[in-house]
Amino acid sequence: MAGAGKHVVIVGGGFAGLYAARRLARAPVRLTLIDRQNHHLFQPLLYQVATAALSAPDVAAPIRRVLRRQRNATVLLGEVTSIDLERRTVELDGAERVPYDYLVLAAGTETCYFGNDGWRAHAPGLKSIDDAVDVRDRVLMAFERAERDSSPADRARDLRFVVVGAGPTGVELAGALREIAARTLASDFRNIATGAAEVFLVEAGERVLPGFPEAMSRQAKRELERLGVVVRTGERVQDIDGDGVRLESGERIEAGLVLWAAGVTTSSLVRDLDGEQTRDGRVLVRDDLSLPGRPEVFVVGDLAAVRRPNGEWVPGMAPGAIQMGRHAARMIADDLREKPRTPFRYRHRGLLATVGRSHAVAEVGGRQFSGFAAWLLWVFVHVFWLVGFRERLVVLFEWAWAWLTWQRSARVIVRPSSTRLRTARSVDS
Amino acid sequence: MAGAGKHVVIVGGGFAGLYAARRLARAPVRLTLIDRQNHHLFQPLLYQVATAALSAPDVAAPIRRVLRRQRNATVLLGEVTSIDLERRTVELDGAERVPYDYLVLAAGTETCYFGNDGWRAHAPGLKSIDDAVDVRDRVLMAFERAERDSSPADRARDLRFVVVGAGPTGVELAGALREIAARTLASDFRNIATGAAEVFLVEAGERVLPGFPEAMSRQAKRELERLGVVVRTGERVQDIDGDGVRLESGERIEAGLVLWAAGVTTSSLVRDLDGEQTRDGRVLVRDDLSLPGRPEVFVVGDLAAVRRPNGEWVPGMAPGAIQMGRHAARMIADDLREKPRTPFRYRHRGLLATVGRSHAVAEVGGRQFSGFAAWLLWVFVHVFWLVGFRERLVVLFEWAWAWLTWQRSARVIVRPSSTRLRTARSVDS
Repeated sequence: MAGAGKHVVIVGGGFAGLYAARRLARAPVRLTLIDRQNHHLFQPLLYQVATAALSAPDVAAPIRRVLRRQRNATVLLGEVTSIDLERRTVELDGAERVPYDYLVLAAGTETCYFGNDGWRAHAPGLKSIDDAVDVRDRVLMAFERAERDSSPADRARDLRFVVVGAGPTGVELAGALREIAARTLASDFRNIATGAAEVFLVEAGERVLPGFPEAMSRQAKRELERLGVVVRTGERVQDIDGDGVRLESGERIEAGLVLWAAGVTTSSLVRDLDGEQTRDGRVLVRDDLSLPGRPEVFVVGDLAAVRRPNGEWVPGMAPGAIQMGRHAARMIADDLREKPRTPFRYRHRGLLATVGRSHAVAEVGGRQFSGFAAWLLWVFVHVFWLVGFRERLVVLFEWAWAWLTWQRSARVIVRPSSTRLRTARSVDS
Repeated sequence: MAGAGKHVVIVGGGFAGLYAARRLARAPVRLTLIDRQNHHLFQPLLYQVATAALSAPDVAAPIRRVLRRQRNATVLLGEVTSIDLERRTVELDGAERVPYDYLVLAAGTETCYFGNDGWRAHAPGLKSIDDAVDVRDRVLMAFERAERDSSPADRARDLRFVVVGAGPTGVELAGALREIAARTLASDFRNIATGAAEVFLVEAGERVLPGFPEAMSRQAKRELERLGVVVRTGERVQDIDGDGVRLESGERIEAGLVLWAAGVTTSSLVRDLDGEQTRDGRVLVRDDLSLPGRPEVFVVGDLAAVRRPNGEWVPGMAPGAIQMGRHAARMIADDLREKPRTPFRYRHRGLLATVGRSHAVAEVGGRQFSGFAAWLLWVFVHVFWLVGFRERLVVLFEWAWAWLTWQRSARVIVRPSSTRLRTARSVDS
């Protein structure tokens, strides 16, 4: 590998890992960034791929391209299968062993079904491009099935969607599904009135957007209901099968599609690390973001449990991840210049969540507001955070177009077979 | 279903089927268009998805959207599994039966391995969006494997591509692969010189672009070789496995990826139809494009074997398919007005094939030319034939961008697992 000096291994090319790598561009180190995917994924817009507004490549930038001019950086496509803190090596795909002087763990989270892995087949999560394309196929296929259903009951079921979990992703998905049904597809079908499609948003907590201030939750709920989303808070899911969900209250919701936005857990990598962890598997790091007793190992992004000055957790969103990645990188650079470590200080930029078309809730600098202005802010922030110049232009274009025409440009079912029409239920006409 | 009068069933939403449906917009019929996919695929640009220049949705338009305002048209997503010419019904997904008064068969062709279906797993074809995304994954993964290969032999193998079949698709793929290797990825890798990637184009016939005039074949071959493609004509493939191909000459080419552009066969649907067929399964239709003895059944597009006035076959490209689809539709409309059938007349628009970046070969109105002017014509023709206004803008934008920057915007590996790195071959570093 190119470069000289200490070897920094970064595991994960998300916001934390990528910004750590960039921050080390001028440091006298050689660094290796390892990711299971070849692309940095702009997670905040992934739901737009799942709802056919954007194409997969719009929200993904090849990590190699992002770092192509950073000569001290090597990108490896592969999975880190274990970490040997004693020998200071990571194991790649169960074979190759990569030694490190510094290790930055930024592997992020994965969808978690709280021990009910059987639900995975019926209620896909939304963490990767492949997830998003799969969800897009399933959403569009539900309408296709309904168009061919002969019994009203089947049709009603296929036009009913359940989104489990009312965090930002769940709220965004639920709003977008109603928008697709009521507007995008309105004139495309002959046998069904797509506008009649029902969208249920089920949340175990007492309110939508649990991580947000209560006023924002109220505004989001009001807007969701205006869009026609049925919001069920304080309801736990007891079971999920191919035909819907059963809630702990005993209520059964027959649905053509169930989407899972309820839970994530940290990469299995960190679970075997010694040291304290939170219930959801995040690592309690030292104030410089290093692993207790391992100053050469940093844990950042969604893997790290870090408190804000006000005692709350740093929210698991892009700004926190970017700041942590940069801080870990700075600590490494400071070590090399024999400067003392400094504690990580989270600068809270605010909170943003969009609810359907042209409505969002925002909290910036303590001030809260919602509606169109918040949505414009949301568009601005998200588009201009997109990694890479090109993405910005295309995404802006696709959005402008979709917004003006109510169309969604990415309405392609890639694998209809994998989400087959239930031919068993079709009969002679 | 909406509409009144005779029921026209169109099987296939490609160029022939879609243009047949549009031509019947004002006819006093109700029509049902059935396709296995929810989208019309702009086949001529599919190789651009496979080579990461365009995203899948750029070259696909939802059939429902294209026909949304045509009130006499119903679109069904499903597979026609058999045809009952006596009872005048088509069978949908082995279950539902759809009766017709007129049937337009436009189901097109599928990839054919000439009885060696075992090759399918090692040498994907390029007929669907799913194919293209799979090929894109495999192409990008070949470079990723090479970057991690420790032995020079493995690296050389993973950087060697074989394209089987030198029709327009094979020629376009081979050229684009060299372009990706030599330019797009040039500065992205650290352990390999992507420019050293070898691309073999193997053709059983005596020349590339066999369907084209000889002068055009010569120009295409010259340009391919200028791009660094190794052209092997008059060479049959004897066997294909996971590590490369063996030619009948005995030569073995070890390759990281083999792509199949060598053969297509007509949809199995028409194979059981009575009446004469060509060796590749195309149906010899009457001069009005109807099935002999079945005036209510039309066979159009790649399914039909039709001769030009000069005795040659109508080439299996978009213009012929569109003209046939329109003619079949006109025959149906004429029947309803009790006008006599008229023979199909193919108006030859010319031949076009692009070879890598900014070079193409063209034959228009008997005149042949090649180079940049031909490429501009190719861009113009293809972009402005794209179904739907939006697609045009995005594709133009993506092309302009890719052309100016040598970048390819769709470099996303959707399913790295499905095309896994051969970890068996990686060793301790």
